[in-house]
Amino acid sequence: MSETKQKKVVVALGHNALGYTTTEQWDAVKVTASALADLVEAGYQLTITHSNGPQVSMIHKAMTELRRVYIDYTPAPMCVCSAMSQGYVGFDIQNALRAELLSRGNPTPVCTVLTQVSVDPYDEAFYTPTKKIGRYMSREDADNEIKKGNFVEEEPGRGYLRIVAAPRPLEILEIESIRTLADAGEVVIACGGGGIPVIVQENALKGASAVIEKDAIAGKLAEDLRADELMILTSVPCCYRDFGRDTQAPIARMNVKEAETLMNEGQFGENDMKPKVEAAVAYLRGCPDGRALITSLEKVDEALAGRAGTVITA
Amino acid sequence: MSETKQKKVVVALGHNALGYTTTEQWDAVKVTASALADLVEAGYQLTITHSNGPQVSMIHKAMTELRRVYIDYTPAPMCVCSAMSQGYVGFDIQNALRAELLSRGNPTPVCTVLTQVSVDPYDEAFYTPTKKIGRYMSREDADNEIKKGNFVEEEPGRGYLRIVAAPRPLEILEIESIRTLADAGEVVIACGGGGIPVIVQENALKGASAVIEKDAIAGKLAEDLRADELMILTSVPCCYRDFGRDTQAPIARMNVKEAETLMNEGQFGENDMKPKVEAAVAYLRGCPDGRALITSLEKVDEALAGRAGTVITA
Repeated sequence: MSETKQKKVVVALGHNALGYTTTEQWDAVKVTASALADLVEAGYQLTITHSNGPQVSMIHKAMTELRRVYIDYTPAPMCVCSAMSQGYVGFDIQNALRAELLSRGNPTPVCTVLTQVSVDPYDEAFYTPTKKIGRYMSREDADNEIKKGNFVEEEPGRGYLRIVAAPRPLEILEIESIRTLADAGEVVIACGGGGIPVIVQENALKGASAVIEKDAIAGKLAEDLRADELMILTSVPCCYRDFGRDTQAPIARMNVKEAETLMNEGQFGENDMKPKVEAAVAYLRGCPDGRALITSLEKVDEALAGRAGTVITA
Repeated sequence: MSETKQKKVVVALGHNALGYTTTEQWDAVKVTASALADLVEAGYQLTITHSNGPQVSMIHKAMTELRRVYIDYTPAPMCVCSAMSQGYVGFDIQNALRAELLSRGNPTPVCTVLTQVSVDPYDEAFYTPTKKIGRYMSREDADNEIKKGNFVEEEPGRGYLRIVAAPRPLEILEIESIRTLADAGEVVIACGGGGIPVIVQENALKGASAVIEKDAIAGKLAEDLRADELMILTSVPCCYRDFGRDTQAPIARMNVKEAETLMNEGQFGENDMKPKVEAAVAYLRGCPDGRALITSLEKVDEALAGRAGTVITA
């Protein structure tokens, strides 16, 4: 088995690539698959990671309801729900992409690898949870979450959201399997939902009550695989200076230093564009010859032609 | 990357290796992992498949309850529940085995690959469902299943069970990914629950309302991988002639022809030992130099030493 000569790219997909319910996801992945297939046809070997907030939240709710009705079932911890969500989302993405590739006469195998990512139990993120998960809750549901020891945050006029810690990813436990498949030229779906967060306890892994930023893990994955590119596909076509203001201006290119300056100026939204730029910077520090692209699913083709998106280099 | 020189074995795990609830599974996989680690230490490259009846049934129930409470969620089809179950069971098996191997100083990577298996929509099994799934139901629940167009069967004194078709597996869609990982010497968990049953419709795959026998898929997987051995680990130590009668006698060895004769005599239980022997025979037809072993998890070590189990050769 020889190493592929294709350019390796790690692609991060956001919520907009997947939708919220099973039927929404079924429809959304078809659009997503078209953009991904364009990348395969452009000669890239793809390793794909994706968010899973709505999916893991749906599964967690389902397992909670199950427990209410069938008392002999034990509650499913968040890590188990996360593992289920990787199977669920991987299944839909891989089938949509497989079908799209086959319709173009391209038989590249597409597979999904269950992935765990270790985090530090003393990561300071555990003291200041920031990551909003799930759907908007009523005041009553929010109070119940607080009673369970969970954190919630109010978004005025919309409701309450549960917030969990988003610690920094330390190690992708299944990196060797992912690398083996990527080196064989396959399309690999891995680190779904940022990976199942685990804490290393001697030889065992213990599920952590946390969420790993899918952008952070995409950067880590790209660095670990020595990927030629990192593509973060989101709902906006590029990064902007003064986003949402009259002076809003797209950023076509920036280097790591410029990116850091803009982050320090608070130019990028805390739970929005900032983690994407941070992931790009982390990847480029480890792979200074790499190239990070932030754009939307719809603009992938234009971005490949250099006419859209934000390109970040070392 | 060079091909491994290890002996390749496909291992099939039954319900007894996993338990029924999330906590039962957590405990059961530790025992299972010990037997599997013995095989790794004996020099085998393992590709592991497992049943998922109770697990997929639990998830299906959970998704049904979710739909009752949160009306904006759409029902999850069986194929989606099956994908979730592969993530769930793979997560537990892979972590238990990883921990067990590390405690023995063995860092072999263990991974789980989401797997789909195609079936023929005109397979005669669809007309005569035989595969019992889930838990015992009351008469009322059974009637509800029948109203939904599903099949149920009564087990006198125990309740009702849903039965679904168990069509013959045609193709393991992710076989290339599984082979790539097996060739790299990794422990691979694949075809969980027999694989997600799908029907090929032009370029797309459509979830099928069926269950693929985990023994049948283990045989197919062993054949496709050209495995040196197929090990079916179940709850009894070997195959028996006259099982359950006064004349019950263990079978230490048999060849394909003898196995077929015994099957024709009705010596092996229809939903019990027969599919295991059938899987062994199918594998040995494709790989006449192979070796099939049917034994219990507890007897693996003795079986490796030739003191337990039933060995079937061509």
